Amino acid sequence: MSDKTKKTIDYYLIRINQIISSVLLPSSKSEPLLNEAMRYSVLNGGKRIRPLLIYTCGECLNIKKEKLDVPALSIELLHSFSLVHDDLPSMDDDSLRRGMPTTHKKFNEATAILAADALQTLAFGTIADSQVITNQEKVGLISIISKACGAEGMTGGQSIDLLSQGKKIGKKELQKLHTMKTGALIHASVMSVFNLANTYNDEEYNIMNEFGWKIGLAFQIRDDLIEIEETSEITGKDNNSDLKNNKATWPAIFGKKASHDYCKELLEDCMNYLQIFNNKAEPLRWLTQYLINRKH
Amino acid sequence: MSDKTKKTIDYYLIRINQIISSVLLPSSKSEPLLNEAMRYSVLNGGKRIRPLLIYTCGECLNIKKEKLDVPALSIELLHSFSLVHDDLPSMDDDSLRRGMPTTHKKFNEATAILAADALQTLAFGTIADSQVITNQEKVGLISIISKACGAEGMTGGQSIDLLSQGKKIGKKELQKLHTMKTGALIHASVMSVFNLANTYNDEEYNIMNEFGWKIGLAFQIRDDLIEIEETSEITGKDNNSDLKNNKATWPAIFGKKASHDYCKELLEDCMNYLQIFNNKAEPLRWLTQYLINRKH
Repeated sequence: MSDKTKKTIDYYLIRINQIISSVLLPSSKSEPLLNEAMRYSVLNGGKRIRPLLIYTCGECLNIKKEKLDVPALSIELLHSFSLVHDDLPSMDDDSLRRGMPTTHKKFNEATAILAADALQTLAFGTIADSQVITNQEKVGLISIISKACGAEGMTGGQSIDLLSQGKKIGKKELQKLHTMKTGALIHASVMSVFNLANTYNDEEYNIMNEFGWKIGLAFQIRDDLIEIEETSEITGKDNNSDLKNNKATWPAIFGKKASHDYCKELLEDCMNYLQIFNNKAEPLRWLTQYLINRKH
Repeated sequence: MSDKTKKTIDYYLIRINQIISSVLLPSSKSEPLLNEAMRYSVLNGGKRIRPLLIYTCGECLNIKKEKLDVPALSIELLHSFSLVHDDLPSMDDDSLRRGMPTTHKKFNEATAILAADALQTLAFGTIADSQVITNQEKVGLISIISKACGAEGMTGGQSIDLLSQGKKIGKKELQKLHTMKTGALIHASVMSVFNLANTYNDEEYNIMNEFGWKIGLAFQIRDDLIEIEETSEITGKDNNSDLKNNKATWPAIFGKKASHDYCKELLEDCMNYLQIFNNKAEPLRWLTQYLINRKH
């Protein structure tokens, strides 16, 4: 990573963490324990991959950071909400997340469920209350993000994931599961940027549409590989949680080698797509490689 | 109830049930079990009090039904989402709702949590995707509704409710709990109507703001009275669930008589407020009396 790219990425990380922290400041109106659980669930050292995708895609289309803050915040809140519910005893029953007790372990189940519920609400509320984007942009974002998050996206994917436990499913079904559970919100991160752009051409839109789906799929396969190849110390998560839950994952069904090969193929496609943006895609190029090669 | 009012209320009930049913039709994109659990959670004979409030308040301000459909649907989805999570074993642990098994009893905990999550997402998505209201109206609705639903409203209230179990709390705290847990979404139902109105005066706005809070509080006190005074056959809910959970309720803290008296006082205030709308408030007058005198 060049010094310039490193500075850019670090800047965006600090930026989004400050924004998240400020939107979750304790207020006299909210219940303190719930607020604490909300803060704990989001401000726990997350990698902020979706916000970084949004900021670096935004650079490709020359969009102001202030506008990108809106989907970056909303989508990270939604991602955090989904992790808290996925970790619950009735779902993946995980006790570690980012090296710390999961929200229901740190607090209790009821508080975890409610904190995540409130994070979802806040995600949509912050878009509506933004002072920097137009009403048309707000409505467009909420439409894109709600589709990615609901029964036809992330939440539907988690439902399929739970139903697939212990089952041998085919490539098409597994791809659908990944596309919904993880891919949809990552894809929405990319596409939300177009919703804020003043100008772009069809080629850019179509290419980034493909990019969004492929990087989402590669991200999930990489995630499943990390879980079986790295230790809990490195990942900060329960080791072999998927194995314990008999989850349908890419390496479990197609093996490690095929999964690594497919990740590599998807990475190459993604990097090729980005040529259209020349130098403006430097930070996004770094992020793409990081996402697909990361160890945790 | 006059024949005309009865017809009006019946019409709105059929209308909102059809709208809810059509937005939850199974689609090829959604996972069938999740969709079924979502439909089960909403289409189970609910009283549709919030939609009825919206439609009948809308009559007072001469707003088209087609526009009122938007908050009516969204707020009913949010109300249903909250009931499913409130019924969970880690919260109120209820097994009956509207005379039927609660969603987690009918399906399982994970499915119930996810179905409710998806209902919340859908509530915001349907506003964004509406074809009949302007972007400004959409953003206004999402702002009002998200505040009423999140950490400073309904979800925060449920958190306080759980923390208050077994505690003797004062009138001010109990009123805050009720205002957040139940009052906020009922108040938002009333205020969402102003967001869709072309014209209204300050007096109407201020009066209905008071009306919204008072009817919300009366509704909750009545709910708590019903639970201790009526049988499970009549209410369709677990009998004495509040007692079992040692909940802070108005009758538990101030006694039955004081609670009945306070309900009556709130009803009188509400009915007085409605004089400003003359005959246009007939259906809302009936609804107000029904809400505060109902047996289930």
